[in-house]
Amino acid sequence: MLIAIDAMGGDHAPQCNVEGAIAAAKEWKDIEIVLVGDKAILEPLLTEKPSNLSIRHASEVIGAEDEPVRAVRRKKDASMVVAGRMVREKEADAMISAGNTGALMTTGLLVVGRMEGIERPALAPMIPTMDGRGVLALDLGANMDAKPEHLAQYALMGSVYRQKVHGLEKPRVGLLNVGTEAIKGNELTKAAYPLLEQLPIHFVGNIEAHGVLSGACDVLICDGFAGNILLKSLEGTAGAMFSILKEKFSSSLKNKLAAAVLMPELRGLKTMMDYKEHGGAPLLGLGGLVVKGHGSSDAGAIKNAFRQARIALQGQLIESISKEFSNGERV
Amino acid sequence: MLIAIDAMGGDHAPQCNVEGAIAAAKEWKDIEIVLVGDKAILEPLLTEKPSNLSIRHASEVIGAEDEPVRAVRRKKDASMVVAGRMVREKEADAMISAGNTGALMTTGLLVVGRMEGIERPALAPMIPTMDGRGVLALDLGANMDAKPEHLAQYALMGSVYRQKVHGLEKPRVGLLNVGTEAIKGNELTKAAYPLLEQLPIHFVGNIEAHGVLSGACDVLICDGFAGNILLKSLEGTAGAMFSILKEKFSSSLKNKLAAAVLMPELRGLKTMMDYKEHGGAPLLGLGGLVVKGHGSSDAGAIKNAFRQARIALQGQLIESISKEFSNGERV
Repeated sequence: MLIAIDAMGGDHAPQCNVEGAIAAAKEWKDIEIVLVGDKAILEPLLTEKPSNLSIRHASEVIGAEDEPVRAVRRKKDASMVVAGRMVREKEADAMISAGNTGALMTTGLLVVGRMEGIERPALAPMIPTMDGRGVLALDLGANMDAKPEHLAQYALMGSVYRQKVHGLEKPRVGLLNVGTEAIKGNELTKAAYPLLEQLPIHFVGNIEAHGVLSGACDVLICDGFAGNILLKSLEGTAGAMFSILKEKFSSSLKNKLAAAVLMPELRGLKTMMDYKEHGGAPLLGLGGLVVKGHGSSDAGAIKNAFRQARIALQGQLIESISKEFSNGERV
Repeated sequence: MLIAIDAMGGDHAPQCNVEGAIAAAKEWKDIEIVLVGDKAILEPLLTEKPSNLSIRHASEVIGAEDEPVRAVRRKKDASMVVAGRMVREKEADAMISAGNTGALMTTGLLVVGRMEGIERPALAPMIPTMDGRGVLALDLGANMDAKPEHLAQYALMGSVYRQKVHGLEKPRVGLLNVGTEAIKGNELTKAAYPLLEQLPIHFVGNIEAHGVLSGACDVLICDGFAGNILLKSLEGTAGAMFSILKEKFSSSLKNKLAAAVLMPELRGLKTMMDYKEHGGAPLLGLGGLVVKGHGSSDAGAIKNAFRQARIALQGQLIESISKEFSNGERV
């Protein structure tokens, strides 16, 4: 298994990317890691050099501010684009990037290429849930608008991912909606509901936003717009509550002392609510495996992305999804 | 000013509705209150009978489980429908109901009737924000799908409401979206953005879900589907965090003692995050004033709904909105 990493992408690149890659190379000897990026910059960062780690030179970098489509089209020697090309040409089995999200989507579509039968690839991060299990949500940002058929494709891909990568036997697939009854929703969800019922998945029906948090499903289906609203509300509410608690809890000496006792519990909750902790997000529906790391990924998060990619490759994720979509053209 | 209340609607009806109405009648002598509902049930509940409070008999009730459109059409003598008819026939200046939400929308549309020039009435509750000021969000549930023109109408109505009822001179109107840049969004929000720019309002651009909570605008524009996801995520996250904190804080004697010290702060935060505290929600875009109370309204919440209706009537809300829409057909 050869996994390429866009060594130059992300807020803490290339330092944390290199550190994470070294840690992954040392832990899993059955993978080959290729750091894609500027050799002159990367080489001095290699404090160790495991035998299964190498550098592939790429002279350009796509930055956070670059306009995605133009950047991918013009910067043909950008680290992200080169890694994508390696996947397309089967030189690499997977790629990882914590760089510009829009550019990574574009790299997925234009460089790696869609899987046959899939109209829209989807970004599928894990959202934290109160029971600590998390839910795979898709689409979360690859496409703002979706058709009912796209939601059905997301459902099938998400279900296979949870089986192959997380080992769930019968993932519960839910549709993000405004009520639990089948007749509820907007035009999109009302049309998607019967399509989801017909799929060879364990469809558990509509899930309301608060049901997502309490862990009512393992795979959550939504269009990119609704998913973004959900995720940012969740992060925003949790973040705001923590900052208000912090302020209130330090407003007097008495409060400070009491808060100190409870601090470990508060920290535990904060970790639980932090979706960055939940690792990289696969971009599903492409001809090869692409994993997006969070922009603020540290070395641990990068190592985790390698862990995920390795499990997905071992489980033959791409082949399994492809098989679902060629099996009688179900969707 | 005559305000009719659907005395039989809501989880705690009729008891709390009657109590709230009595309190309102005693506090504001410039309003006439009519309790609409079963006289035989309501009369014994009148522990006091202020001179500006009376009963209007209605023999039927629309329950929480009733199918909205059918119920409104068939139960012509339901308390909610009778109150709506009083508004349509200018017998009453406003109506309040904490009953079946769908049925109240239907009563608004079919009984009270739309305002001229408005395609879709919108439900506009206040969502709590971290700065305690709150944001008026619309539409929150009257219509799941919206066209760009509908969003523009919501914006104009919401802006007038904040001026007339809350006394804001120049309400900041924001569009719920996935990013702050003008080009971000789905087809709906991208098409609505330029329409909002042209309105005679203080449009502050796109607002992300976490920006809503930090109080980035006074009026938030969204379709009913996205608004529902936003609100339920917010309520769901806050509720889940409180229940986890409660569990963790009572997991040992040491924690319990520390938590007891902090309890007033936690309670304050809980109140701040509770959108039921923020009173009734107007259904804007109708020919008369309709205020929806939360289903779980207690007597205090009902009294608050009267307060809101009274201020709206004093500020000539309906006439002001109507004027905006007849002024050169702006939207």
